[in-house]
Amino acid sequence: MATKFISTRNLKFLLYEVFDVVALTKHEYYSQHNRKMFDMVLDAAMKLSVKLLHPLFEEMDRKPPEFVGGSVKVHPQVRELMKQYGEGGWIASTFPEEFDGEQLPALVANCCNMMFSAANYSGAAFPGLAAGAARLITNFGSQELIDGYVPKMISGEWQGTMALTEPQAGSSLSDIATMAEPTANGHYLIKGQKIFISAGDHDGVDNVVHLMLAKIPGGPPGVKGISLFVVPKHRFDTKGKLVPNDIAVSQIYHKMGYRGCPITELAIGEKDDCHGYLVGDAHRGLTYMFQMMNEERIGVGLAAASIASAAYYAALEYALERPQGRPISSKDPLSSQVPIVAHADVKRMLLFQRSVVEGAFALLLQCSRYEDMCKLTTGDEKETYSLLLDLLTPVAKTYSSEMGILSTSQSIQCFGGYGYCEDFPVEQYFRDMRIHPIHEGTTGIQGMDLLGRKVIMKEGKAFNRFGKTVREAIAAAEQEEALAPYAAQLSGELESIEHITLHLIGLAGEKGPAVFLADATLYLELFSYIAIGWQWLLQAMAAQKAMQRKLSNSETNFYQGKWFTFRYFFEYELPRAAGVTKRLKSLDALTIEMQPQFFND
Amino acid sequence: MATKFISTRNLKFLLYEVFDVVALTKHEYYSQHNRKMFDMVLDAAMKLSVKLLHPLFEEMDRKPPEFVGGSVKVHPQVRELMKQYGEGGWIASTFPEEFDGEQLPALVANCCNMMFSAANYSGAAFPGLAAGAARLITNFGSQELIDGYVPKMISGEWQGTMALTEPQAGSSLSDIATMAEPTANGHYLIKGQKIFISAGDHDGVDNVVHLMLAKIPGGPPGVKGISLFVVPKHRFDTKGKLVPNDIAVSQIYHKMGYRGCPITELAIGEKDDCHGYLVGDAHRGLTYMFQMMNEERIGVGLAAASIASAAYYAALEYALERPQGRPISSKDPLSSQVPIVAHADVKRMLLFQRSVVEGAFALLLQCSRYEDMCKLTTGDEKETYSLLLDLLTPVAKTYSSEMGILSTSQSIQCFGGYGYCEDFPVEQYFRDMRIHPIHEGTTGIQGMDLLGRKVIMKEGKAFNRFGKTVREAIAAAEQEEALAPYAAQLSGELESIEHITLHLIGLAGEKGPAVFLADATLYLELFSYIAIGWQWLLQAMAAQKAMQRKLSNSETNFYQGKWFTFRYFFEYELPRAAGVTKRLKSLDALTIEMQPQFFND
Repeated sequence: MATKFISTRNLKFLLYEVFDVVALTKHEYYSQHNRKMFDMVLDAAMKLSVKLLHPLFEEMDRKPPEFVGGSVKVHPQVRELMKQYGEGGWIASTFPEEFDGEQLPALVANCCNMMFSAANYSGAAFPGLAAGAARLITNFGSQELIDGYVPKMISGEWQGTMALTEPQAGSSLSDIATMAEPTANGHYLIKGQKIFISAGDHDGVDNVVHLMLAKIPGGPPGVKGISLFVVPKHRFDTKGKLVPNDIAVSQIYHKMGYRGCPITELAIGEKDDCHGYLVGDAHRGLTYMFQMMNEERIGVGLAAASIASAAYYAALEYALERPQGRPISSKDPLSSQVPIVAHADVKRMLLFQRSVVEGAFALLLQCSRYEDMCKLTTGDEKETYSLLLDLLTPVAKTYSSEMGILSTSQSIQCFGGYGYCEDFPVEQYFRDMRIHPIHEGTTGIQGMDLLGRKVIMKEGKAFNRFGKTVREAIAAAEQEEALAPYAAQLSGELESIEHITLHLIGLAGEKGPAVFLADATLYLELFSYIAIGWQWLLQAMAAQKAMQRKLSNSETNFYQGKWFTFRYFFEYELPRAAGVTKRLKSLDALTIEMQPQFFND
Repeated sequence: MATKFISTRNLKFLLYEVFDVVALTKHEYYSQHNRKMFDMVLDAAMKLSVKLLHPLFEEMDRKPPEFVGGSVKVHPQVRELMKQYGEGGWIASTFPEEFDGEQLPALVANCCNMMFSAANYSGAAFPGLAAGAARLITNFGSQELIDGYVPKMISGEWQGTMALTEPQAGSSLSDIATMAEPTANGHYLIKGQKIFISAGDHDGVDNVVHLMLAKIPGGPPGVKGISLFVVPKHRFDTKGKLVPNDIAVSQIYHKMGYRGCPITELAIGEKDDCHGYLVGDAHRGLTYMFQMMNEERIGVGLAAASIASAAYYAALEYALERPQGRPISSKDPLSSQVPIVAHADVKRMLLFQRSVVEGAFALLLQCSRYEDMCKLTTGDEKETYSLLLDLLTPVAKTYSSEMGILSTSQSIQCFGGYGYCEDFPVEQYFRDMRIHPIHEGTTGIQGMDLLGRKVIMKEGKAFNRFGKTVREAIAAAEQEEALAPYAAQLSGELESIEHITLHLIGLAGEKGPAVFLADATLYLELFSYIAIGWQWLLQAMAAQKAMQRKLSNSETNFYQGKWFTFRYFFEYELPRAAGVTKRLKSLDALTIEMQPQFFND
C-alpha cells in the first residue's frame, strides 16, 4: 500500500504563495485566525487522514455496505469516523460561530477536504454530505429546524443527504414526482421515491436527515413548482421523542467503485405517514438546493482531484523504485536496469498526472477563495466574486472528474500489469473515480450550464470578468522573461475562446438554442484548458518568485518540479485546445442532423 | 442485460464492401471458399457467441477463478467452451489444411473473433491463446513437437500460453532469467519464474502447453541469447505416457477486470525436473515469439474494439429507450419527455463510440487483409504487405485499446448513474478494457516500436508505402464531390505527419535517440488519427457507392449511420491531431531534462 496520498507541501504552496490565505485574516470575519493556526488545522486534518481514513481505504471497498433486513450495514468504523469528524469540528469547520462553527476560510477547509478525500473518498463522503445538508438548513431553514436538526448533524451523530433524483427524473429535475401534501399541523405529508441517494441510510449514525425536493399540489409545473423539505428518517413526535418517519430503503446499489458509501433507493411515505418540513418558501426549492448543489459540485471536483492525487503518488512511488530497462542511449544488457522514472515516457506520464492534480487543486482553491471573498465583500465587489465562482464551478467540477479518469488511468499504466491487480491501490482509484463525471450533474449538464447559462448571463458579465482576470495574470507574467512566452501562448488561447464564444452566440441568434448548445461539452473542454492554463501561470509566477530566494535542496526540487509541470502543461496539454477550437469553429451541425434511426443496423 | 453486442451488418459491410474478401478466393490458397460459406461461418460464430459465450459474460466476472490447493479452478463451462471451439474448428480456423485447419482468411476468422470477444472477452481468451501457441509450433517446431502437441491444442483439450514475463523483466525482455540447461537426452531442464501468464493453468483442460522464453547458458547476453521452448504442464515420458513436468502455480492475480480468465504466476523446475523442448534454433527465440506476439497484439486490439462494441450497443439500447428531458427548443414541462438519444450531446457520445468501434474494426481488418495477402504473394509484393502489417500492428493495438477506454467510459456516461452499477454490463466492459493498453506490450512500448523501429526500418520503406496507400484512397475519394473536402483534410494531415517524421529523424541525428523517441507515444497517437481517418475514408467511399443503389429503409439507415459516423470522425476526432502536431513540432526536450528528484516534495 502506497503511503503518500497528497502533498502537504503543495497545499501550503497554494494556500500561502498563490492564494495568500493570510490576507483574508485582515478582514474582521476571519480575524481570529492566523498562519500558525492554519498550519495546525492542516496538521490535524492530515493526522485524521493518516490514522483513521487511509487505513480503511481498501477495507471499505472490499467489504461494501450490506442491505440486511431492510437496513443498511456499513463498515463498523464509519460510526467512529463520524464521531471524530464531529468532535474535531470538521463538519462545521466553515460555519459561522453562531452555529458552533470554526469560521474557517473555505480555502483552508477545502485543503483539509482534499486530504480526507485523497485518503479515502468513500469515508470522507459521509461527513461531507452532513456538512452540505446542515449548511442548507442554517441558510434557509426556520430557527426551529435549525435547533432541531443542525446540532446533531454537525456533531456527526446524524447523517445529512441531498435527495433529488427519481427514477423518471435523473438529470431532468422538472419531472420530479414526489409529492408534499400540506396538513393543518404545519408539516407536509411526503410520498414518492428517490434513487441514488448517497449515504441515504446506514447504521453508522442514529438518524438521517434528507434535504428532499418535492412538489406541493397545485404549484406551477416544472422546476418552478419544486419545494425543499427536511425529511428525517426519525422525526420528533409532539413530545419531542424521535419516532420512525415512514421512509424505507428498498435497495442499495452495487457499484463499480465508491463502494464504501451506500447509495440507496428510498420509498417515502408508503404508509402515508412521512412528515416533511418546508425549508424557506414554497416553490423555491430548486434555488435553495442549488446552493448545496454548487457546493457539492465543487466537492465532486475536489474529490476527483484528490483521488487522482492519491493515484499519482502511488504511481510515483512505484516509478522511483521499480527497476526496468535501460536508457535508450546505452542498452548494454550487462549494465544494471534503471528505475522506470528515468524513462522519458514514464516522466511524461507522471508529469501529466501531476499537471492534472495540481492544476485542478489550484482551480478548486481559486473557487474557494472566491467563496471566501463573497463573505467579506458587498455590492459590486461581491457580485464579481460571485459571478466568477458561478462561472468556474462547472469547469472545476468537470475538468477534475474527466481528466481524473485519464490521470488515474495513467497511474495504472505506470504500474504495468501490477496496476491492474488488487495488490496495488491504483485500480481502486480508477474505479472510485468513474462516478465523478456523473453525480451532481453529468458532464453534459455542466457544459450546458456553462455555455447556456453562466457565459451568457447578465450579458456576458461573468465571462468578461473572467477574461479580465486572466489578462491580469498574463500582464503580470509578461514582466518575467522566463514566463513571457507562456503568457503570450495563453493570451492567444484566451482571444481564441472569446472569438468562439461570439461565434456561438451569433449561431444562437441565427439557428436557435439547439445548435448553439450542441457542442456545449466541447466548449467546456476548451474553457478548461484556459482556466487551468491560467492557474498554472499563477503557480509558475509564485515558483519563479520563490526561486529567487536561497533555497534548500528539497525546496529547489519542489519548485523545479512545479516549473517543469507548468512547462509540461503548456507544451503538452494546452496545445490540445487547438483540436477543440477547430471543431467549435465548424458550422456542420451534424449531431443535430443525425437521426436516431441511423443508429439502427 | 443488453442483447446486442456487435453488428453483423457492419462486419459484412467491411468484409464484402470495403475489403472485398471474396477477391481472395480467386487465389488457389483460398479457392475452396466462397461468400456463401463465409456467411455460414459468420452465422456459426454468432450462434456460438449468443448461445455459449454471452450468457457466461457476467457470471465469469462475478465468480472469478479460484486458487485452491495448488490448482486453478475456472468456471465449469470453460471446459465446454474449449470443447465446442475445438469441435467447431475455431482454434485452427486459419491453419493450413495440412494441420487440420480450415484455411480460412484471417479477414473472416477475425470477424468471428470480434463476435467472440464482444460476447465475452474472458471466455474468448482461452481458445485464442491456444490458437496462437499452436501456430507458433506449426511454424517453427519440429515434426515431433507438432505431432505431440498441436492436435490436442486445436481440439481444445489442451491450453496453449505464451510465457514471457518475469518479475524482474516486464517490458525488458533482455533481462529474462529463466534458464534452460541442455541435457544429453535432447531436452532441456528449465528453471525459473514467470508472472502474468494468461490461462497459465486451469481445470478446464487436461494439459497446458507453455511457449516459453528462456536462456541457454553460455549464450549471448540480452535478447540475442533468448530461446523458445515448448514446456508442457504434463510431458510425455519415455513410454509416451503423460507425467507431471514440475511446473507449479504459486499464485493467481486478483484483477480489476478480465476476471474470467486466470492470470498465473508459475514456479518452473523447482525440483529440477522440468523438461523443455527447443523450438527451432537456439538463441532465435525472440524472433519466433514475435510472430505470436504480433498476432496477439492484433488480438489485443481486436478484443479492445470488440469490448467497446458491446458497450456501445448496450449504451445505444439504453439511449433509445430511456425517456429523459425535452428538446432544448421546447422545454414545456407538461410535454412528454423524449428518449435521451434525441439530445445532441448523447448523439455525439454515441457517434464517438461508433467511430471508435467501426474505425478500429476497419483498421484491424485492414491488417487481416495484409496478413492474408502475405500468404498469397511473393517477392516485392509480399514484402509490401508484410511491411504495412508490421507498421500498422502497434497502431491497431494501441488505438483500439487506448480509445477503447474512452469509448467504454462514454458508454457508462450514456447510462448516467445506472452505468456505474452492476445491474448494467457497461461497468464490466470498462473494467475488462483497462488491461489492453498494458498486455502484449504497453502503449509506451508500441510507440517506440512504431517510431524507433517500424517507421525508420529499411530507410522508411514501410512508412513511404503507407503514405502511398493512403494517397491512393485520397485520390479515389477526390473524385466524389461529397467526399472531396474530407479527402483534402486527410491529405493535409498526411503531409503534416510526413513533415513531423522528417523533423524527428533530423532531431535523432542532431540530439540522439533519446530525444528522438521521447514523444514516441504522442507520435503513435498522431499516426492513429491518420490511419483511422484513412479507414473512415475507405468506408465512406463504400457507403457512397451503396447509396447510389435503391435501398430498403433499414439499409438506408445503415449507410446514413456510416456516413454520419464518418463525418463525425472528420469533424470531431481528426481535428484533435492538431494538438499533438503542435507538441511534436516543439524542440523543448522537457521530459529528458526533467530530473527524478524534481518529483520529490
